[in-house]
Amino acid sequence: MTLKLYVDRMSQPSRALLIFCKINKIDFEEVKIDLSKQKHLSPEFSAINPMRQVPAIVDGRFKLSESHAILIYLSCAFPGVADHWYPADLSKRAKIHSVLDWHHLNLRRGSMTYVFNTILAPAFGRPVNPQAAAEGENILKSSLSKLERIWLKGSGKFLLGSYQPSIADLSLVCEIMQLEILDDEDRDRILHPYKKVQEWFEATKVATRPHFDDVHAILFKAKAQFQKQREKDTSALRSKM
Amino acid sequence: MTLKLYVDRMSQPSRALLIFCKINKIDFEEVKIDLSKQKHLSPEFSAINPMRQVPAIVDGRFKLSESHAILIYLSCAFPGVADHWYPADLSKRAKIHSVLDWHHLNLRRGSMTYVFNTILAPAFGRPVNPQAAAEGENILKSSLSKLERIWLKGSGKFLLGSYQPSIADLSLVCEIMQLEILDDEDRDRILHPYKKVQEWFEATKVATRPHFDDVHAILFKAKAQFQKQREKDTSALRSKM
Repeated sequence: MTLKLYVDRMSQPSRALLIFCKINKIDFEEVKIDLSKQKHLSPEFSAINPMRQVPAIVDGRFKLSESHAILIYLSCAFPGVADHWYPADLSKRAKIHSVLDWHHLNLRRGSMTYVFNTILAPAFGRPVNPQAAAEGENILKSSLSKLERIWLKGSGKFLLGSYQPSIADLSLVCEIMQLEILDDEDRDRILHPYKKVQEWFEATKVATRPHFDDVHAILFKAKAQFQKQREKDTSALRSKM
Repeated sequence: MTLKLYVDRMSQPSRALLIFCKINKIDFEEVKIDLSKQKHLSPEFSAINPMRQVPAIVDGRFKLSESHAILIYLSCAFPGVADHWYPADLSKRAKIHSVLDWHHLNLRRGSMTYVFNTILAPAFGRPVNPQAAAEGENILKSSLSKLERIWLKGSGKFLLGSYQPSIADLSLVCEIMQLEILDDEDRDRILHPYKKVQEWFEATKVATRPHFDDVHAILFKAKAQFQKQREKDTSALRSKM
C-alpha cells in the first residue's frame, strides 16, 4: 500500500513534507485537503486525523499527524533517506530536535500570527487584527534574530553549522516562504536585516531544487492573486476620494 | 564529568527533567538558574544556552536546550532508562513525537499564557492582561478537550492508550501542574470537565512518586504565598470600602 500524504500546498508544513518525499524518492499519493473549503473539518478527514489539521499521513494501517513527527518517521521508516536529513549520531540528532522544538513557539508562532492577521484573515471571512499582527511581527523578528545569531552560527551553509540540509532546514525555510504572500515591501522590511538567514534560505532552495520550486508554485499564484486584490482595493479607494 | 541540569523548579519543563533523571537514576548536578532574579539573562548562562531559557543541560562538552529534545537525548544516552519512557519501536516513538510536537502550540501555549496573565505577571513587575488571559483560557480548554478525547483514547491509563508512562506523559502533566498556583476555584473550574485528564494526571503522579512530590514541593510553597497575597489584597480592598 502506498504512503498517503494528506496535505494542502498552501500550508507550509505540508510543503516541507512533499519536498522531503520527492527529494528522497519516497513513493506517495498526495490527497488534497482543501483548507479554504474547510475539508480539514470533514468527518472523512477527522477519521484520518482527529486534530483536523494538515499534514497527516497514513502508512499502511499507521496514522500520524504533526509535520516534525512525520518527517522524523519517514526519515527512519524509508531506507533510502540520506543520513544528513536526520543523522543517526545522537548529538547531531539531539540538536535537530532542539531546533524543531524551538520552532513551534518562535518562528512558526510569529510567522503564522503575522501572516494570518495581515493577509489571510479576510480569505477566511475574518477581520484583520492589527494588534495581533503587531504581536506576531515582534515574535517573528525576535525569532529571525535568534536564527541569525544562534542557529546559523558556524561554518556550514545550513542550520547548526552543517554542510548539508536536515529536516529542520526544510521545515523552517518552508515557514519563512509563507512570507512570500505578503506585500513585497512588507516582506523585505521584515527579512532585510538578516543576511545569514537570506543566504541560508537561498542555499536550502538550491539544495532542494527542482522540487522546492515545483511545490511552491501555488504560493506564487496566491501571491499574484493577493497583489491583484490589493491593487483593486486601492483603486476602489481612490475612486471614492 | 557529571551531567549538569540548569533549571528552576518553578519552570514546568525543568521539573519534568528533574523527575525524569531521579526516577531513572541518572546522576546529575542541579544548577539553579533563578528566573525571578533574571539569572537566565546572565552572561554566564548565555554561554550555556544562548536562547536564555531553562532547562538546559551540559553533558561533557555537549550543550543542549529545549526540554523535549533533552528528554529524548537522555533516554537514548543513558542505558538504564526503561523502554516505555521513549520506546525504540518506530511507530510508538513517532506517536510520542506527535504528542510532544502538538504540546507546544496547544497545551503549553494555553497554560503559559493563562497562568502568566493571571498570576505571574505582577511577580515579574508586569500588569495582568485580562484579554491575553481570556485567549490563554480558550487555548487551554480546547487543548484539555483534545487531550481527553484524542490523546487519552484507549485502554491504558497513559497517553496514547499506553500502560506505562512516557516522556510525553511527564512533560504534559508537569505543564498542567503549573495550574496549581492559580486560585483553587479557578483551577477546578478549568479542570473539572475533564475526567480522563484528571485520572491520567493522578496515574502519572502515582507512577513517578516520590520524586513527583519532592520536585513539586516548591510549587505548593508558591501556591501558599500567592494565596496569602490574595487574602492580603482582599482585606486591603475591604478596609478601603
